[in-house]
Amino acid sequence: MEHFADRLIARIEGTGTPLCVGIDPRLDRLPEAVREKALKKHGETLKAAAAAIEAFSFAAIDAVAELVPAVKVQSAFFELCGPPGAAAFARVVARARKKNLIAISDAKRSDIGSTAEAYADAHLGELRVGGARLEPLAADAVTVSPYLGADGVRPFIDRAAEHGRGVFVLVQTSNPSAGEVQDLHDGGRTVALHVADLVWQWGKDLAGRRGYSLAGAVVGATRPESLRKLRGECPRAMLLVPGYGAQGATAADCAAAFNEDGLGAIVNASRSILYAFGEEKYAEFGERRFQDAIRAAAQEAARELAAAARSRTGEAQPE
Amino acid sequence: MEHFADRLIARIEGTGTPLCVGIDPRLDRLPEAVREKALKKHGETLKAAAAAIEAFSFAAIDAVAELVPAVKVQSAFFELCGPPGAAAFARVVARARKKNLIAISDAKRSDIGSTAEAYADAHLGELRVGGARLEPLAADAVTVSPYLGADGVRPFIDRAAEHGRGVFVLVQTSNPSAGEVQDLHDGGRTVALHVADLVWQWGKDLAGRRGYSLAGAVVGATRPESLRKLRGECPRAMLLVPGYGAQGATAADCAAAFNEDGLGAIVNASRSILYAFGEEKYAEFGERRFQDAIRAAAQEAARELAAAARSRTGEAQPE
Repeated sequence: MEHFADRLIARIEGTGTPLCVGIDPRLDRLPEAVREKALKKHGETLKAAAAAIEAFSFAAIDAVAELVPAVKVQSAFFELCGPPGAAAFARVVARARKKNLIAISDAKRSDIGSTAEAYADAHLGELRVGGARLEPLAADAVTVSPYLGADGVRPFIDRAAEHGRGVFVLVQTSNPSAGEVQDLHDGGRTVALHVADLVWQWGKDLAGRRGYSLAGAVVGATRPESLRKLRGECPRAMLLVPGYGAQGATAADCAAAFNEDGLGAIVNASRSILYAFGEEKYAEFGERRFQDAIRAAAQEAARELAAAARSRTGEAQPE
Repeated sequence: MEHFADRLIARIEGTGTPLCVGIDPRLDRLPEAVREKALKKHGETLKAAAAAIEAFSFAAIDAVAELVPAVKVQSAFFELCGPPGAAAFARVVARARKKNLIAISDAKRSDIGSTAEAYADAHLGELRVGGARLEPLAADAVTVSPYLGADGVRPFIDRAAEHGRGVFVLVQTSNPSAGEVQDLHDGGRTVALHVADLVWQWGKDLAGRRGYSLAGAVVGATRPESLRKLRGECPRAMLLVPGYGAQGATAADCAAAFNEDGLGAIVNASRSILYAFGEEKYAEFGERRFQDAIRAAAQEAARELAAAARSRTGEAQPE
């Protein structure tokens, strides 16, 4: 398969926006009709829960497939539905890829070396069973925690390199307590900066045709000044930027994620798009037309973020 | 349910050893007969892979259930078998609990707050589906990554407190590159020491009858001097200690994990026990009697580690 960063950039250019839609299907926030249909069919079971979040995820993917380059599928909400949730997760990832979306498994996995290999094979690679080679989850990319150092990350990068996939290593997350560990200082530099440098070291020889590495970094937009510094630390890493939308960062805050080529990042929005049907701004659609609300919210975010990316090229200012 | 640490200590005292057996079922290391049986039944499918590792895990659990207090089930090897692996994981955890073992889900999960809640509910809590409250995975405890700070860990601690479960936060892992992040220094103290202190802060008001908190820490034995320091940093946290056995740490290295009451830690061994049938030392059993080899290896490790724990009470020296 083509290099991950090249594939991602081609999709960004094809859709004209760096927006990534986060598929975070929370059972208690789904449109009533979606939940009720699954409960009616499967009773009060984990299977019903999985069926409901799968149906909603499919609807969201179908709504945004033509508008955005990528989706980030949040593993936690599927794991919460038990074993049927794992089956739903795999189908949702497959649906996204079938719709030509780049599907990022937001799993934040890591472990010691030989165990990290198993996670890497699960998300990005294959398992040999007898003479067959089977892809357990077949995502385009996966998010990985850096706490264990290279042993915990390299197996993902190796698998990504073999199979045309990508990795996004957590560098600076978007949550309020992120700094408790990530802002500890060593030699005047934060842990997050050290990790950004590691990401760069791990991935610098793995760039695609467009100059970006398959080893990317998760850097939140909730602290723009820090985002700017981290952008500089690993200039050819693709950034996956959470924090925009429901978490409070604006498109202008996200501008620092991009390089002067207007590339180098995708910005994720989950709740502000998926649950737009509950927002006053999109009240016209109502819960029944939740897909139209998703589409409208995605279009608006796509426009805002396209402008933010362009602002770095000197062509225009962010909205 | 009774407090997690009290339950764990009761099992440690009941079996007389702090050994935790790691259930790390690697498809390519299983006894040939176990793998072949599953392939014959299910063909070259992920279902076959999941059936094989489930059968092997059941056999291992049954072999050690009377001998040890706890098992640690490694999520990665189940995730590698795709959706059928998730079902196998839940059944393996359930089998362990049915056999009165404390079942630790070694998942190393974490995420931003509201997403971490979903993981916490998945592993330790429940999901409401209509009027039903369902337990997706129902483990006794789960391992958690600290990279996101309190937001990523507290939801697990809160669920654990509600449901009589436990949490083990990664502090110092046992792999060679652990220090790349964990040994960065801030104010003369390593990141691992800072995290150990956080674990202590998060869990100090959540101690059970025996004085230990439900918020524990993962501290590897591969660096005994550092283990000693970290033990001191969070004296009433239960430690989950990897690194013994195949990763090279000896029982004497593990002694520093225990307090002077001879308690405060469980020591994990995975490969050296599960795959004992391939070791020269247990060659008498051969692959066919792999359960007997597991039992013999567990008995020896149980004895060694019991002595190591006793050595800290002043009663005896480690072997």
